Amino acid sequence: MAEKKYVYSFKNKDAHKLGKNILGGKGAGLAEMTSVGIPIPEGFTVTTEACNLYYAEGKKLPNYVIEEIYKAISNLEKETGKTFGGKTNPLLVSVRSGARASMPGMMDTILNLGLNDEVAEVMTKETGNETFAYDSYRRFILMYFNVVRNQPRVEMDKMLEDMKEKAGVKLDSELQAVHLKELVKQFKAFYKKTLGEDFPTDPRVQLIEAVTAVFRSWDNERANVYRKMHHIPYEWGTAVNVQSMVFGNKGETSGTGVAFSRSPATGEKHIFAEYLPNAQGEDVVAGIRTPLPISWLDENMPAVYKQFEETVHAMEKHYRDMQDMEFTVEEGKLYFLQTRNGKRTANAALKIACDLMDEGLITEEEAVLRVDPSLLDSLLHPGFDQKVLAKTTAIAGGLPASPGAATGKIAFDAKDAAARKEAGEKVVLVRSETSPEDIVGMVASEGILTARGGMTSHAAVVARGMGKTCIVGAHDVIIDEHAHTMKVGDKVYTTKDVISIDGTTGKIYEGALPLVEPTLTGYFARIMELADKHRRLRVRVNADTPLDATHGRDFGAEGIGLCRTEHMFFDADRIFFMRKMILSKTKEERVAALNQILPFQEQDFYEIYKVMLGMNVTVRLLDPPLHEFLPQEEEQIAALAKELKINVEQVHERIELLHEFNPMMGHRGVRLDVSYPEIAVMQTTAIINAALRAQKDTGKVIHPEIMIPLVLDVKELKYVKDIVVKTAEALIAKSGQKLHYHVGTMIEIPRAALLADEIAKEAEFFSFGTNDLTQMTYGFSRDDATKFIPDYFEARIFEQDPFQTIDQAGVGQLVKIAVERGRAANKDLHLGICGEHGGDPVSVEFFDSVGLDYVSCSPYRVPVARLAAAHANLKKKVK
Amino acid sequence: MAEKKYVYSFKNKDAHKLGKNILGGKGAGLAEMTSVGIPIPEGFTVTTEACNLYYAEGKKLPNYVIEEIYKAISNLEKETGKTFGGKTNPLLVSVRSGARASMPGMMDTILNLGLNDEVAEVMTKETGNETFAYDSYRRFILMYFNVVRNQPRVEMDKMLEDMKEKAGVKLDSELQAVHLKELVKQFKAFYKKTLGEDFPTDPRVQLIEAVTAVFRSWDNERANVYRKMHHIPYEWGTAVNVQSMVFGNKGETSGTGVAFSRSPATGEKHIFAEYLPNAQGEDVVAGIRTPLPISWLDENMPAVYKQFEETVHAMEKHYRDMQDMEFTVEEGKLYFLQTRNGKRTANAALKIACDLMDEGLITEEEAVLRVDPSLLDSLLHPGFDQKVLAKTTAIAGGLPASPGAATGKIAFDAKDAAARKEAGEKVVLVRSETSPEDIVGMVASEGILTARGGMTSHAAVVARGMGKTCIVGAHDVIIDEHAHTMKVGDKVYTTKDVISIDGTTGKIYEGALPLVEPTLTGYFARIMELADKHRRLRVRVNADTPLDATHGRDFGAEGIGLCRTEHMFFDADRIFFMRKMILSKTKEERVAALNQILPFQEQDFYEIYKVMLGMNVTVRLLDPPLHEFLPQEEEQIAALAKELKINVEQVHERIELLHEFNPMMGHRGVRLDVSYPEIAVMQTTAIINAALRAQKDTGKVIHPEIMIPLVLDVKELKYVKDIVVKTAEALIAKSGQKLHYHVGTMIEIPRAALLADEIAKEAEFFSFGTNDLTQMTYGFSRDDATKFIPDYFEARIFEQDPFQTIDQAGVGQLVKIAVERGRAANKDLHLGICGEHGGDPVSVEFFDSVGLDYVSCSPYRVPVARLAAAHANLKKKVK
Repeated sequence: MAEKKYVYSFKNKDAHKLGKNILGGKGAGLAEMTSVGIPIPEGFTVTTEACNLYYAEGKKLPNYVIEEIYKAISNLEKETGKTFGGKTNPLLVSVRSGARASMPGMMDTILNLGLNDEVAEVMTKETGNETFAYDSYRRFILMYFNVVRNQPRVEMDKMLEDMKEKAGVKLDSELQAVHLKELVKQFKAFYKKTLGEDFPTDPRVQLIEAVTAVFRSWDNERANVYRKMHHIPYEWGTAVNVQSMVFGNKGETSGTGVAFSRSPATGEKHIFAEYLPNAQGEDVVAGIRTPLPISWLDENMPAVYKQFEETVHAMEKHYRDMQDMEFTVEEGKLYFLQTRNGKRTANAALKIACDLMDEGLITEEEAVLRVDPSLLDSLLHPGFDQKVLAKTTAIAGGLPASPGAATGKIAFDAKDAAARKEAGEKVVLVRSETSPEDIVGMVASEGILTARGGMTSHAAVVARGMGKTCIVGAHDVIIDEHAHTMKVGDKVYTTKDVISIDGTTGKIYEGALPLVEPTLTGYFARIMELADKHRRLRVRVNADTPLDATHGRDFGAEGIGLCRTEHMFFDADRIFFMRKMILSKTKEERVAALNQILPFQEQDFYEIYKVMLGMNVTVRLLDPPLHEFLPQEEEQIAALAKELKINVEQVHERIELLHEFNPMMGHRGVRLDVSYPEIAVMQTTAIINAALRAQKDTGKVIHPEIMIPLVLDVKELKYVKDIVVKTAEALIAKSGQKLHYHVGTMIEIPRAALLADEIAKEAEFFSFGTNDLTQMTYGFSRDDATKFIPDYFEARIFEQDPFQTIDQAGVGQLVKIAVERGRAANKDLHLGICGEHGGDPVSVEFFDSVGLDYVSCSPYRVPVARLAAAHANLKKKVK
Repeated sequence: MAEKKYVYSFKNKDAHKLGKNILGGKGAGLAEMTSVGIPIPEGFTVTTEACNLYYAEGKKLPNYVIEEIYKAISNLEKETGKTFGGKTNPLLVSVRSGARASMPGMMDTILNLGLNDEVAEVMTKETGNETFAYDSYRRFILMYFNVVRNQPRVEMDKMLEDMKEKAGVKLDSELQAVHLKELVKQFKAFYKKTLGEDFPTDPRVQLIEAVTAVFRSWDNERANVYRKMHHIPYEWGTAVNVQSMVFGNKGETSGTGVAFSRSPATGEKHIFAEYLPNAQGEDVVAGIRTPLPISWLDENMPAVYKQFEETVHAMEKHYRDMQDMEFTVEEGKLYFLQTRNGKRTANAALKIACDLMDEGLITEEEAVLRVDPSLLDSLLHPGFDQKVLAKTTAIAGGLPASPGAATGKIAFDAKDAAARKEAGEKVVLVRSETSPEDIVGMVASEGILTARGGMTSHAAVVARGMGKTCIVGAHDVIIDEHAHTMKVGDKVYTTKDVISIDGTTGKIYEGALPLVEPTLTGYFARIMELADKHRRLRVRVNADTPLDATHGRDFGAEGIGLCRTEHMFFDADRIFFMRKMILSKTKEERVAALNQILPFQEQDFYEIYKVMLGMNVTVRLLDPPLHEFLPQEEEQIAALAKELKINVEQVHERIELLHEFNPMMGHRGVRLDVSYPEIAVMQTTAIINAALRAQKDTGKVIHPEIMIPLVLDVKELKYVKDIVVKTAEALIAKSGQKLHYHVGTMIEIPRAALLADEIAKEAEFFSFGTNDLTQMTYGFSRDDATKFIPDYFEARIFEQDPFQTIDQAGVGQLVKIAVERGRAANKDLHLGICGEHGGDPVSVEFFDSVGLDYVSCSPYRVPVARLAAAHANLKKKVK
């Protein structure tokens, strides 16, 4: 057997066939670019398998892999004619992570590796550019200290600031060689003081340390957070790319930039790029300096620009998708450092997919698959009311990095944002610039505002990925992160102030602006139409009100999968009757109170039916424990006592009696109907009478479905179903109309899934309540689990929140069991899911695979589910 | 296809082969008795299938069944030479229920059916005994009114009392014909007034109404309660036996009695019988008159007695078991009305099984199977301390109807008893006599005392069945059930007074007497030895203290299946450290507090190991949510604040932070170890160090098993197991000793059962926690379910409490899945169960059938489990 290889040169003929799984995205891209003749600096990839090997060996790289890396460096020396640590023509390399899926900014990069005192001197001599040599060297020491040795960079950053002050300059690039040499000296001394050893001078030692540091960074906190958010398995590992350095910091004929082949914000078909002369890549990405428009390159170096433009178009054509590229110009020579399919906003994704399809580059199936369903969400959320906007003056502006609108109180750090979100507050995260450590805070915020950085800065890239409103580079905003204040002109804003940010225009407003529904582009309509054409799963909406129902229908819902009746009871004009019902001591009292609720319920259903004419409307009977409806405040308790003609103590006593140890596992759902059949009678009456009235008034057919929640046994279902059917039949007979209604159950208790064969005999439909099913299958409640789930992520027991994405191994197993047994017992059984997983793309794919008939989700998630359903169906065909 | 038969004559040659399932126990017995020539009144059985048909048809008996009954009556007329409703020689019949399993007193019986004004006159004429004729008639009207028409008997009973007063007599049997005729008139008038129709005169109408009434009584409340207690399925239905009447109330040469072929109380081998001259059977059963010893019959009618004695012996030999029989003497002629295997006390069951085996009537396997495991429980509970008894004077005495000892406050009705039991009070139910309506109260009471009735009265029979202490016929006790007082001599006792009753001696004491351990007979030892020989399942004990462990070991436990560590923390001298640990803000504080708990834990385990030398001891790591340990009282909170050097508000804040919405589904079990690995470290240290010390001190091998609770994922188990193993290995290495310990998990979360194949790879054993598994599989908590489970029984959704007997269909399915997948993945996996189901005989049978290695239960349940395990194993062989 041939020995396994862990290192591949970009030029290796086999390399570009190995693909992302082995080489990582960046490595595969570099190999492919090499194979098609794009100018890139030479180098090699250490594979993802080496990463896994590193972890399997207890975070140690085996000697045979180290030998392979050394051999690759020797080859690189031959190819480039340079020498690693050499006394002439020295080879410097960059060491970058490159996972299978793009994880921008999540892992570590080390540039200028190979430098030491000797090499810096050789570079000075050979380039005649001492500033360049020591600028590279000071950068390298800091990155090595920070990334490889995992030390905070704050002290070294301060030395740089002090040096700039001493030199009387503002920008890093204005520093002279003398300053930079002094800085290198300071850095090395600090390195030794902190770590108790000298900065390593052997480039081969530097290299192996850097490679393993990148492997370690696969396991850092921000990478873990990112993976969780993007469903990237820990097992994938990252590859490492070692590439000979080219230098954008060699003076004014050098520079570095990033480019998108089309606009990642709007999808417009023109190259969208930024360029920073005399800089290294990290300066652009970290947002330390705000880059120039690419036109600068065209104006100043037109030949380079022409080559740049041609290469960008060629690469887009080659990859048949919008490309996100990094490039460097070294003394007038252009190099591309990487290319990948670009992250994009939802609108851009839609437009690009349609355009590429129209350009004949991709098929309609591919166009559908090109739009990530989870991105759509951002499109569908409200923006600011344009009329109000017209009359409102922005207090400042910045770059519109990620579209949408957000309103919230200011949070100045990630931790504060997360804590306040947890406490129920809406916050906007305001930072000078963001770094990967801020991810948790970005997730928790309504939107993100940074004072620095460009459209490709960390904040911008990450926010777009999240579909979260973001403004960057708002230079007029002065942020004091320590004092927790934001200053605009003379006005100071604190954590108590509310701001509104418009990620589509880049404008920032004081106070809360009213939000309105989004208007969707024709691209959205085209992609959704194609999605509908290519999906099997039906999509319904979870809607408790006529307004929700209207939203859902307008977003393409094909019915209501879950109409919760309990929210209706909370309205001020009915909660009182509800409480009266709950505190009733006799059946007669209870029936009397229910009869007062009946007209409200009937009217609610009537209006919902009118929105959903001709579609199925699934109404769930009362679900939560009754004590949720009871008053907490003495004033309300007193009012209740008066109405019930008992004293306040008695009301307290009755409330006390309803107390439950574990309300989630208490007297709720179908159990209420078993104890108080009159509740089922009232609700059935409202459902059926409303349907009869709506049929009569509209002349259209109404399809009510009555759903009995929390069932655990067929006898329990039958007991309540018999009450429902008896009530319904009598009302229908009395009306003289025809009405088709269905009675089914939720499958949300493990026992119901296990006994689905029996239950299916009495049910016309199952709707999986995956929220409760997850709670019971895991044995923990969603509310309480927030306290320990973070520990589970940290211990790497969980990689996903099972309440967000369905747990296929456990909960999914119960879903499969229920589907198989249910269908076997009742071939006409209709199957859906109405838990929150119904709007999660990964979960939708699972539900498609097990053969459900529909998913149901919240109104704004309906398009997401429609597209996810198409993805699920198309991916099956690809397989 | 031959038409299905629903009615069988006792004489039908096929009848006795149909067995209990079709004919019911009584019907099968009558058919069998007929086939072997025992003198019984002729008649026929309406099958259990007719009962099911009756319910399936919506409580209506199909015409073809009615026709079959009429045909059977015609045949009976021919056989007896009597005529139903006839003007000469009229046929009267009894109509009795007879289910597959004996359910004494639970369903309805109607005697003397066929009487009307005309027939009463004919009987008067033909027997010359007007008193007899009208005594029978008044009984029939009352029974018909009460049982068939489901009306309360209280008014008619009062008419009887008034009549006795008017006549100046004390006993019913002292009433003269004139009084009885008047009573018949009053009864008929009251019947018409109440029901708006005449008492039916057509015997055929009476018969069909009576048959359906018996069918209906299958569904009455007391039958449902009894079935639940004895695991009798609702689907079985009851048969009805229609038998020509013989009359024990035809004067002094007539009478009625019940007999046991051996003592049902002690098992002694002599006929144990009671006889009541000039009476019908209901008088004996209802305890209305206290019967005479059977010697009366021998003295007064020696020939009849001789035939009686021979038949009893013959029937016992035929059935190879102790028989419980009803017989009637009609004018000197002996009839047996029924025979069945007699109910017996635990001690009687043990002795009878041994004696029958010694007599060669049954095999040793049969002897084991003859003792109902659930009866043993009563044997194992403490009795009164004999030394105290010797110095204590009883306030009164009665018949020792069911052995044992009980102490509690007096409850005068069943409802009060049930309510107070629910409220946590111990009560003794004190009644003049009990009736089937009292069952709920009997279940709730520690013991039962009745002023009237004999050893075969309702109270006595039912209490023995329940294994509950009972005294009957305590005539010196005067009970006023309305005033809720009990008078003995001059002293009046109320619901606030405590009494003690000794069911073994029949003595009643004032106040609470101390209880002591029972001493077991040699019969117990013999049967248990045979049980051990014939069982496959091992039996362990759930023991948290050295005392529990000692009890369990003495009762034959072969190890500890569950040692809960949390109870140890509640002791006054340690709860403080526990609280300190819980409220710690840092890991360092927590470790410091844990180190203070460590010596206590280690000492506890050390002592337990010393009791269980050489046996496996399974210790479960901390399980309950931490807030269970927190103080409620301000004083304790203040003490804690002082020790923690923080203020009281801060303690309150920390307690508030630990609040959970659903503690059962909160931060507990393995989740605590994931969040605070230091807890697992401390507990492992205690477990291992104690084992090392015990090995050193005793020179015996110690087998600790460390059990991780509430696991839901293999990664979670591995995470904590790694901590446990690392800790344990270090301690063992340091000690220089050898120690074999095992690490396993509980399977109590549905997900763990579903993913048992993965989990088994990291577990050396599984122990099913069926309490939690039932909660999660059903989706309701045991504590909260008490509020609605009664509704589920009433609606006949549940027939069993799933927390008492394992739900084989749902929870059992998960157990099976986990066993199969677990064993497939790890063939050495050891499997047990430590939930409360481990001591429930029906559940033990299930656990045997799925192949568990052991069950573990509370100390007093260990013998029950041993015997149940033998039953399970022997029944498999029979199948």
